[in-house]
Amino acid sequence: MIIVDELKNRALILNSRPDGYPDESNFKLIEIDIPELNPGEFIVKILWLSVDPYMRGRMSDKKSYAPSVEIGDVMVGGAVGKIISSRNTEFEVGDLVEGRFGWQEYAISNGMNARKLTINESDISKALGALGMPGLTAYFGLFSLGRPIPNDTVVISAASGAVGAVVGQLAKLSGCKVVGIVGSDPKAMYIKNELNFDYVINYKKEDVCKRLLEICPNGIDIYFDNVGGEILEAVLENLAFRARIVVCGQIAQYNLANDEVAHGITNFRNILTNQATVEGFIVSRFASDFPQAYSFLERLYTDGKLKTKEDIIINLENTPEALLRVLTGKNFGKQIVQIV
Amino acid sequence: MIIVDELKNRALILNSRPDGYPDESNFKLIEIDIPELNPGEFIVKILWLSVDPYMRGRMSDKKSYAPSVEIGDVMVGGAVGKIISSRNTEFEVGDLVEGRFGWQEYAISNGMNARKLTINESDISKALGALGMPGLTAYFGLFSLGRPIPNDTVVISAASGAVGAVVGQLAKLSGCKVVGIVGSDPKAMYIKNELNFDYVINYKKEDVCKRLLEICPNGIDIYFDNVGGEILEAVLENLAFRARIVVCGQIAQYNLANDEVAHGITNFRNILTNQATVEGFIVSRFASDFPQAYSFLERLYTDGKLKTKEDIIINLENTPEALLRVLTGKNFGKQIVQIV
Repeated sequence: MIIVDELKNRALILNSRPDGYPDESNFKLIEIDIPELNPGEFIVKILWLSVDPYMRGRMSDKKSYAPSVEIGDVMVGGAVGKIISSRNTEFEVGDLVEGRFGWQEYAISNGMNARKLTINESDISKALGALGMPGLTAYFGLFSLGRPIPNDTVVISAASGAVGAVVGQLAKLSGCKVVGIVGSDPKAMYIKNELNFDYVINYKKEDVCKRLLEICPNGIDIYFDNVGGEILEAVLENLAFRARIVVCGQIAQYNLANDEVAHGITNFRNILTNQATVEGFIVSRFASDFPQAYSFLERLYTDGKLKTKEDIIINLENTPEALLRVLTGKNFGKQIVQIV
Repeated sequence: MIIVDELKNRALILNSRPDGYPDESNFKLIEIDIPELNPGEFIVKILWLSVDPYMRGRMSDKKSYAPSVEIGDVMVGGAVGKIISSRNTEFEVGDLVEGRFGWQEYAISNGMNARKLTINESDISKALGALGMPGLTAYFGLFSLGRPIPNDTVVISAASGAVGAVVGQLAKLSGCKVVGIVGSDPKAMYIKNELNFDYVINYKKEDVCKRLLEICPNGIDIYFDNVGGEILEAVLENLAFRARIVVCGQIAQYNLANDEVAHGITNFRNILTNQATVEGFIVSRFASDFPQAYSFLERLYTDGKLKTKEDIIINLENTPEALLRVLTGKNFGKQIVQIV
């Protein structure tokens, strides 16, 4: 049994709000005592932290779909870990759990936002990626909003990322023609050769609009948008009739300095002429259907039909750096931090 | 009986494609013989021509949802008239009909795209407005895409126009709070006092974004977009959770010169954060449901619950001028041309 009294928790708190890209000065590492457990609570020793683009939004005090992190609060985020002490009858010591535990080494939970993991312990980091929130985001964005049918042309931006890579694999399984847009040659090689995307565009080297016209002569039926900005504009030039644009992320817009204006979309009119649908969504909307989506994805993974790639950074201290990697597209695969 | 042999038809053909706003030089008035009727055909003496914003798109050779008018062809458009000669058993001499007859004084039809009118002869011009394509556009855009529920806040641009005025009245009948955006004080007075919109904004005099924030403290549930551009951007700043944006027209974009770029929408990200839906539509999508929509609108009109306003120009020759009025917002009410 672990003597909780002797443990110290270390956490990263929000220290200041960024203007443009965040950096390490926006966070502060603190050491805190772990309080006594109340009835119903348990302590999780965190093993893996998730690092995701949406976190940039939580650092800002601009109005968004979820509340901001307050200065001085532990930075939010998903994590997986093992329960080391429990006063909750449904969560036992030794259980592996995933939850919104934040950027810290230990977390106290009452189980409300925690999910017991049934996958192998060696795979638990996947519960932050393809078998977690990014996987669910891909699943509901593609199936509920994109509504693919065989032979649809599906274009995905940030296609090697945690969400995009799952979207592409699900679209391939649905019989679609899949085009991935990425920002480096290794990422391009990966989605083409490992994930079997039909086409790939490196937006840093190629004219996206022109390439889409070549690759998608019948237009784009589904665009899974993780980035917004100029790539969205290029896609709008190449829509098929009744195209569906699934707005999942707008990472191109997340790190604007306070005096910067986002790239303006000048061809909105194409939404009218193609009778297209654009829909923004946050995965929590589909919460009531999470169980079947988890089962579906876990089954695919077990069957070897869902490949995953992780980009691992070691140590809590390096989590800000990991976030910057994600926001600048330097990560290659799902960005996670291993707490050792 | 009318001796058709003695009739000459006059028509406006497309003479050149405009760069920016069209003018009279883009059209040419020609006089042509009326050919012999084939079996199944009839001749319509046109009484009223419809003038609508979409016509600007037909004058361009840019790809759009409908084919361009070719240089030398009669300009397209809806019209109503009376049958003066018929070899079609379903359409008799004396019948009042509405159809896509084009900018001319007489048209030959085989009945395929013609609809017999059952409304009073004194009201037949309404079959080009609230009881015609603009009315259907309002009906399907609002009910099928906007999906209003009581107390929704509905914002409409070009709100005194042929479509907008119907949208607003239908939204009021649905128990919504209705905000109209217009470009002149008489239009503002009209929709407020005659059509009983709850609020009105004159975009030429007021800061639309700021006024929307004041008027719609809980955000905009439905935006019926006839204009695009800066007004769309102002609306995107004030969306409610799960807002529906019905993209019906983008008139602000229609008259760009070939070297002009449309106003860029910089706050597309709000579609994500508010989980909003944007959908472009062309009313023909709903063709199978037109009969019940016509009945619904005619019933409302007969019951005095659907008010209409017409802006009448006299003579075929003046149709180009009428189009320019529509494209510059100078018309006040549904723009039609009376052929006398």
